[in-house]
Amino acid sequence: MSEKKKFIRDSVYGDINLNPFEVRIMDMPQFQRLRRIKQLGLIGLIYPGATHTRFEHSIGTMNLGSKLSEELGLEKDEIELIRASALLHDIGHGPFSHVSEGVLSFPHEELTKFVITQTSMRDLLEEKFDVSEIVDIINGQGHLGPIVSGELDVDRMDYLLRDSHNTGVAYGIIDYERIISNLKLEDGLILDIKGVQAAEGALVSRYFMYPSVYQHHTTRIVNSMFRRALKKVIDEEIIKEHEIYKYDDADLIGIFRHCDNHFVNDIMARLDARRIMKRVKTIRLDNFKYPEKMYKIKQDALRKAEEEIAEDYDIDKDYVFINIAEYPRFDEMKTQVTVEGKLYPLTEISNIIGALSKARFNIPDISVYVDEDERSKFDKFKLENYLDLPEIDREKFHGIHYDQIKLF
Amino acid sequence: MSEKKKFIRDSVYGDINLNPFEVRIMDMPQFQRLRRIKQLGLIGLIYPGATHTRFEHSIGTMNLGSKLSEELGLEKDEIELIRASALLHDIGHGPFSHVSEGVLSFPHEELTKFVITQTSMRDLLEEKFDVSEIVDIINGQGHLGPIVSGELDVDRMDYLLRDSHNTGVAYGIIDYERIISNLKLEDGLILDIKGVQAAEGALVSRYFMYPSVYQHHTTRIVNSMFRRALKKVIDEEIIKEHEIYKYDDADLIGIFRHCDNHFVNDIMARLDARRIMKRVKTIRLDNFKYPEKMYKIKQDALRKAEEEIAEDYDIDKDYVFINIAEYPRFDEMKTQVTVEGKLYPLTEISNIIGALSKARFNIPDISVYVDEDERSKFDKFKLENYLDLPEIDREKFHGIHYDQIKLF
Amino acid sequence: MSEKKKFIRDSVYGDINLNPFEVRIMDMPQFQRLRRIKQLGLIGLIYPGATHTRFEHSIGTMNLGSKLSEELGLEKDEIELIRASALLHDIGHGPFSHVSEGVLSFPHEELTKFVITQTSMRDLLEEKFDVSEIVDIINGQGHLGPIVSGELDVDRMDYLLRDSHNTGVAYGIIDYERIISNLKLEDGLILDIKGVQAAEGALVSRYFMYPSVYQHHTTRIVNSMFRRALKKVIDEEIIKEHEIYKYDDADLIGIFRHCDNHFVNDIMARLDARRIMKRVKTIRLDNFKYPEKMYKIKQDALRKAEEEIAEDYDIDKDYVFINIAEYPRFDEMKTQVTVEGKLYPLTEISNIIGALSKARFNIPDISVYVDEDERSKFDKFKLENYLDLPEIDREKFHGIHYDQIKLF
Amino acid sequence: MSEKKKFIRDSVYGDINLNPFEVRIMDMPQFQRLRRIKQLGLIGLIYPGATHTRFEHSIGTMNLGSKLSEELGLEKDEIELIRASALLHDIGHGPFSHVSEGVLSFPHEELTKFVITQTSMRDLLEEKFDVSEIVDIINGQGHLGPIVSGELDVDRMDYLLRDSHNTGVAYGIIDYERIISNLKLEDGLILDIKGVQAAEGALVSRYFMYPSVYQHHTTRIVNSMFRRALKKVIDEEIIKEHEIYKYDDADLIGIFRHCDNHFVNDIMARLDARRIMKRVKTIRLDNFKYPEKMYKIKQDALRKAEEEIAEDYDIDKDYVFINIAEYPRFDEMKTQVTVEGKLYPLTEISNIIGALSKARFNIPDISVYVDEDERSKFDKFKLENYLDLPEIDREKFHGIHYDQIKLF
Repeated sequence: MSEKKKFIRDSVYGDINLNPFEVRIMDMPQFQRLRRIKQLGLIGLIYPGATHTRFEHSIGTMNLGSKLSEELGLEKDEIELIRASALLHDIGHGPFSHVSEGVLSFPHEELTKFVITQTSMRDLLEEKFDVSEIVDIINGQGHLGPIVSGELDVDRMDYLLRDSHNTGVAYGIIDYERIISNLKLEDGLILDIKGVQAAEGALVSRYFMYPSVYQHHTTRIVNSMFRRALKKVIDEEIIKEHEIYKYDDADLIGIFRHCDNHFVNDIMARLDARRIMKRVKTIRLDNFKYPEKMYKIKQDALRKAEEEIAEDYDIDKDYVFINIAEYPRFDEMKTQVTVEGKLYPLTEISNIIGALSKARFNIPDISVYVDEDERSKFDKFKLENYLDLPEIDREKFHGIHYDQIKLF
Repeated sequence: MSEKKKFIRDSVYGDINLNPFEVRIMDMPQFQRLRRIKQLGLIGLIYPGATHTRFEHSIGTMNLGSKLSEELGLEKDEIELIRASALLHDIGHGPFSHVSEGVLSFPHEELTKFVITQTSMRDLLEEKFDVSEIVDIINGQGHLGPIVSGELDVDRMDYLLRDSHNTGVAYGIIDYERIISNLKLEDGLILDIKGVQAAEGALVSRYFMYPSVYQHHTTRIVNSMFRRALKKVIDEEIIKEHEIYKYDDADLIGIFRHCDNHFVNDIMARLDARRIMKRVKTIRLDNFKYPEKMYKIKQDALRKAEEEIAEDYDIDKDYVFINIAEYPRFDEMKTQVTVEGKLYPLTEISNIIGALSKARFNIPDISVYVDEDERSKFDKFKLENYLDLPEIDREKFHGIHYDQIKLF
Repeated sequence: MSEKKKFIRDSVYGDINLNPFEVRIMDMPQFQRLRRIKQLGLIGLIYPGATHTRFEHSIGTMNLGSKLSEELGLEKDEIELIRASALLHDIGHGPFSHVSEGVLSFPHEELTKFVITQTSMRDLLEEKFDVSEIVDIINGQGHLGPIVSGELDVDRMDYLLRDSHNTGVAYGIIDYERIISNLKLEDGLILDIKGVQAAEGALVSRYFMYPSVYQHHTTRIVNSMFRRALKKVIDEEIIKEHEIYKYDDADLIGIFRHCDNHFVNDIMARLDARRIMKRVKTIRLDNFKYPEKMYKIKQDALRKAEEEIAEDYDIDKDYVFINIAEYPRFDEMKTQVTVEGKLYPLTEISNIIGALSKARFNIPDISVYVDEDERSKFDKFKLENYLDLPEIDREKFHGIHYDQIKLF
Repeated sequence: MSEKKKFIRDSVYGDINLNPFEVRIMDMPQFQRLRRIKQLGLIGLIYPGATHTRFEHSIGTMNLGSKLSEELGLEKDEIELIRASALLHDIGHGPFSHVSEGVLSFPHEELTKFVITQTSMRDLLEEKFDVSEIVDIINGQGHLGPIVSGELDVDRMDYLLRDSHNTGVAYGIIDYERIISNLKLEDGLILDIKGVQAAEGALVSRYFMYPSVYQHHTTRIVNSMFRRALKKVIDEEIIKEHEIYKYDDADLIGIFRHCDNHFVNDIMARLDARRIMKRVKTIRLDNFKYPEKMYKIKQDALRKAEEEIAEDYDIDKDYVFINIAEYPRFDEMKTQVTVEGKLYPLTEISNIIGALSKARFNIPDISVYVDEDERSKFDKFKLENYLDLPEIDREKFHGIHYDQIKLF
C-alpha cells in the first residue's frame, strides 16, 4: 500500500515533492498562517507584483535546502531535518514580515523558536525530530546550521529568485544550481573556486535589489509609517507584542482600520490610498567621513529630532519621519573560498566583491519625510540643527544619488 | 518644462509607461482598492503563488490594449480611450473577484459601470473622456468594444499569461504578440489566417487551465464554502450587496472572522486552516446524453437537494454542498478568421478547435461535498434520489476523469 | 585524490554533470563529429536560430534519461547504461540529420549500431558496458529500451524543448518534469493519470511543431532539393552511402560546392542564396476519402510523374519536385495510462488526444514545386494527370490550409 | 493592394517585422552568407549551444536599433536608415567572425565598407539610401552613429542577450528595455539617471562574460590555433586576405582540411577532435605594477619568444603559443549620464562601475600553451627568460585566478 506522492506547484521551481510528514506540518494552522503573510510586506505599493507570501518562500527554501543537502551528500535523516527546518524557518514572522519586526523588542527568530517549542507544533514535530535541533539549524548553529542560515544560505537564494520573479526586477535571477553544486560543508559552507562567479552574481543581485527593492525610498517611508502605527497599537495593548505571531496581514489591516486611534486609522487610510509622506531632505551616507557612524545614532535621538522638527514647523509630531536606510549588510561577502586546498575570503578572491564591499556605503542615506502639504516649508531645512550627524568629508566627490524606480 | 515620464514595473511585461492622466486614475482610491483584490480569489489555496491582484491585471490589460490599438492603427485619442477603458474594466469587482460575484444578483460589470458613472471617478474621467464610451467599451459594445471584451480580447490574453506566471502552470504562456499582429478591426476583431496557430495555442491554454486552475476541484468547493458564508452576511445585511465594490479582501476576511454568525466564522476558520469539505460523489457531465441540460437545473433545486441530503444523513444543511463545474464557455471559438478575403469561423478552419468544441463537455462534473467526518456515511449515496438529473447515455464510453493537481 | 567533477553548460538545462567515462566517450572523434551536424538540418533557412547540433541534443537526452532513470528507481549501473545509450543514440546520424537520412537505403539507427559495434568506439565502450545492451536500448528494445526510444521517451522530450528554444517557437515548451515524475517502467513506460495533462501538452506541442517547423512548406522543399543533390553524389560514388556517418555538414557543403556535377553545384548555390523552388500546386490530404492511401504511393511513381511533368512543361526533369508531407506519426498517442490499477490508451483517456488522432491527416498535403521562372506555366496544372491519386471525398468540408510562418 | 507583411521568428525577441526593402537586402547573397558565419567563432567548443550566427545577430541588432530609434523620436526615414545600417553592420565579417579578424591586417569594418560600397549590394542600397550614410553609422560617426556603434549601442545589447541565450550563461540577461527607454540622442547617446542601474547590470554582464565566454582560457587557445593556420593559408595565398568576406565557415573548414599544408590540416584535425594545446604557464596581469604595459608588447616579440621556447624545448615552433587575453575594454564605462541637466561620466555616478574600471585588469593573463605530450617538460619554465615582461609588483596581493567553466 504505497502512499500517494504529494507535491505542490511552485511558481519558481515547478513541482516540489512533499513527504507525508511535511504535509502534516503544512496542515498545521501555524503554517497555514504564512499563506497570509506577504513576503515583502508593503513593497507591493512599489512593485505591484510583490504579493507573494512567506508560505511560498518557506516551501521554496525547503526545496533548495533539500537540493543542497543532497549535493553535500548528507544522510537521509539529515536531509529530512534540513527540509523541516527550512520549512519552519520563518514560522514566527509577524504580519507583513520585516515591517512588523522593526517594531518588536526581539527578532522574529525568537518567535519562531517559540512557535516550534511552545505550541502544538512541538507535539507534531516531536513525533519525528528533536525540536532543539530544528531551532539550532534555523539560528545557523551546529554543523548543519549554515545551510539554512549562513553567508550563502538557501533562504537567501530562494528569496532573491522569488522576489525577482514577483517584482519583475530581473537582477535577482541567480545561478543557484552552480552555487549549490560548488558548496562543501566543513566548518561552515565553503565555496569551491568554480562557484565564485555564480556567488559574485548573487551578491551583485542583492547589491542591486537593495536600493531598487528592499531599501527603495518608498519602501522605507511606507515601512516607517506602518511601524509607527503598529507601535501605537502595541503601546495601547490592542495587540500584545508577544502574540504577534498569531496575527496575519488581514488582522492587522482590520485593526488599523477599525481601532480606536485616529492616527492609526489615518495611516492605514493613507497606505490604502497610497498617499505617502514626501521626502524633504536627504543626505547620503557617503558624504560623511565614517558612514558607519550613522548606525550608532540612537532611536531616541531620532525620535527627539522628529519631535523638535514637528514643533519648529508646526506639524503634528507623529507626521514627521526620519529614516536611515538599513545597514548594507552583505554577509555573503564573508564566504570562504577553497582554492587548491587553501581558504581565502571571497572579498580577496573576487575583485568585484572587494569593490562592492567598499562601495556599499555609498548607497544608503538619511532622509526626512512629512505630509505633502507641509513640503513647501522645508526649503531651507537643515537636519544638522536637530541631529548630531557624523563629520562631513569635504574632500570626497559625492557622486549622484539615484532612485531606481520612481513611479508615482 | 517636460513632464516626467512615469512607468510601473510589471512582473510579466517589464516596464509599462503611463501618461499623467493614467497616473491620476490610478491614484484614485477606487483604483487603489484593486491592489487588495486577489485576481484568482481563493485559488491561492491550491496554487500558493496565485496571490496576484486585479491591480496588476488591470495595468497589464491596458498594456496589451495599447499594443493592439497601435497595431490596428487607431488614432491617438482612441488609443487613450482604450487604455483608460482597459485600466478600468474591473473597477467594480468585489473582494476575491469572481468568488464574491457568484453570490450577487448582478454581474460585476454593473458595479463597474456604477463606479465609473456614479462616483468621484466620473469627475476625473470627464476631464478627458465621455464616460459612456468607456462603459460601452468595457461591455464590448461599439466599434472598439471587442478589443477589451470580445472573443479574443486583451483581458483574456493578460489573465492567461499572468495566471500562468503566478501559478507556475505553464499552459497559459501564449504567443500574444503573434495574435495581436494578426488582428484586424472590422465588424469585430477578425483574425488573419497567419494568427490561427497562435489562437489555437491560446485556446488550448484555456482548455488546460479550466480543470487545472479555474475549475480545479478544490477551487470549486472553496468557492462554494466562501459564497455560502457571503450570502449569509448579505442576507443579514452585515454587508449591503450594492456596496460590495467598496470592500477589499481584508474587509471580508475581517467580517467573516468577527461577525456575529457562527457559521460564517466557522467557514472562515476552515478556509484559514485549509480544512476543506470533502467530495463524496461525482458524476461527469459526459455521462449524460445532453450534458448541457445540467446547466438548466435551478439553484433552488440544488438548494433543496442539499437540504434533503442533510436531513437524510443527519447533517447541518449548511454543510452539504452540491456544485456543478462552470459552463465550459470558450468564446474564443467564435472568432472569425479571414482567408483571402473570406470569413470562416475558427472552429471550421482549425481541426483542433473543432475538436475542443466537442470535447469540452467531457471535463465538467456535478459533485457533492460534506465534512470529512461525515464522509463514511456516503458509501451508497445516489444523487439521483435528490435531484432530477438528465438522461444517462448508456452507450457512451465514459473515459476517465482526472484531477490534475491533487495536493492536499 | 578525488576526481574532478566535470560538467557542461547546456543552453536549455544549465549545468549537466558528466562522469569521467562519459567525458571519454565525448572525447572520441565519432562523438565530436556531432558538434558539426545540425539537429534540424536545413530548417535554419526558415528559423535562423535553428543552428543547434546533435551534440547538444545528445547530451540533453542523456540528462533527461538520467533524471527519468532516477525517478524510476533504477540501479546505479542501469542509470549509467541509460546515460551512455542516450549519449550515443544519434551517433550514426549523417550530415544535416534527417535530411541526409531521407536518401539512404537504411535508417540512421543502422549506422548508429555500426559506429557503436564496429569502430574504435566499441573498444572504449567495452571497458564498461556490453555494447549489445546499448544498441538494444537505442532501438527501444528490452526492459530499458522505452526510456530512450518509445512512445514518450527522453529523446523526444529533449528535442521538443531544444527546438523551441532555438527556433523561438514557444509551442515546444513542455512540462517534462511532470511527465517524468509520473512515469513507471512496467511493460513499457506507463503514465500515471496525474501526468496526463502534461502528456497532452507535449502532444499538442508536437502537433503544432509539425506544420510550423518540422514539415513547414519551406522545410519540405529545401529538404527535397538537398536530397536530390545528395542522391546524385551517392549515385556517382563521390560519397559511399555506408560511410555517410563519417561526414559532417561542412564536408557535404564542400562536396556540393566543388564536385564535378553541375546540378549538385547549382542546388548548393540555390540553398546558399536561399533561391528556393516555388510551389505551383497543393492538394491537402483531407480532400481524399482515405488520406492514408497517399502514403502507399511509390517513390518510382512520384519520380515518373516528375519526369512527365518536366517533359510536358519543357523543364529539366531534375527541377520538378513532388513532395508529400511526412506521415503524421504521433507515437505518443499509443501511451498507456494507469488509473487505479487499470491501463487505458491515452487516446481514450484524453479527449484532446482523441481529437488530434483524428485531425492529424488534415494537415499534410502533396505539393509540386518548380523554379520561380517556370511558375507562370502552371496555372491550369492538374496533378491527377500525372499521378494516380486516391479518391476525392466530395462531401467533406475541406477547411483551409494554413502555413504558419510565411517569411520570404 | 497592400503588400504582405513579412516577419522573421527570432529566438530571442519573437517575431520581427521586415519591410519589403529589408527583405530584398536579406535576399542578397552577401547577406545570406551571414547565415553561415558563427557569431562566436569557435566558442561552440566550450559552450556547445554557441552555434548562432551573424545572420541572427544582424536582424536582432536591427530590431533593437529600430526600438531605440522610435524611443528617440527619430523620423521615419532616419529609422529606416538605422534599420538598414544595423542589418548591414557585420556584412564584412570573415568566417568565424572575430577569429579570422585576428589575422587580418585591417579590421572587419573595412570589409564591411567594401561590401556596402563596392559590390552589387551598393546597387540595391542606392535605390533608397545614400551608402556613405550607412557606412558612417556603422562606424559610429555622425549624429546617428552612436545608436549602432558607441558606448551603449544596440549591437552590444543584442550580442549580450543572444550569447546568453545560446551559451546558457545567464549573466547576459540585461534589461535592454530599461536602457533604451532612458537614452537621449544629443552629442552621443546620453543616459538618464533612471537607466543607470540597468546600464550597471549590462556592464556587470560583460564583465562576467569576458572570462567565462569571450576570453575563456579555451577560447583563447583555440582562437590562437585557428589563427595560426589561417595565417599560413593567407601567406601561401590559398586565400586572398582581401577576399575573406566571400568565404563562410564551411569554406574555411574545407580548405583547412584539404589544402596542401600539413600544419593547417593538423590544426583542423585537432579542432575537430577537440585535441587542444595545454597551458603550461600563466601569469596574471595584476602581478605587474602596470598591467596595461603588457599590451605594448609587439607581436614580433611574442613570435620570437615562441620560436626560442620551441628551440630550447625541442618542439616544432608552430606548436608553441603565447597568448595575452584581449584588452579588457569596456567602452560602456565612457557613457555620459544626465542628472538634472548636468552630465557625469558613468564611472563617477556608479560605484560599481568605478570599481569595475579598476578591477578589470585583474582578470586577464598571459599564458603559454604546448602540445599535451610536451607538457611535462615545462615544470620549471620561466617566461621572463624569453620575453621582456613589465615590472612585477611585489607588494600586491595577487588574489586567485579562476577559470569559470573548466570542462574538458
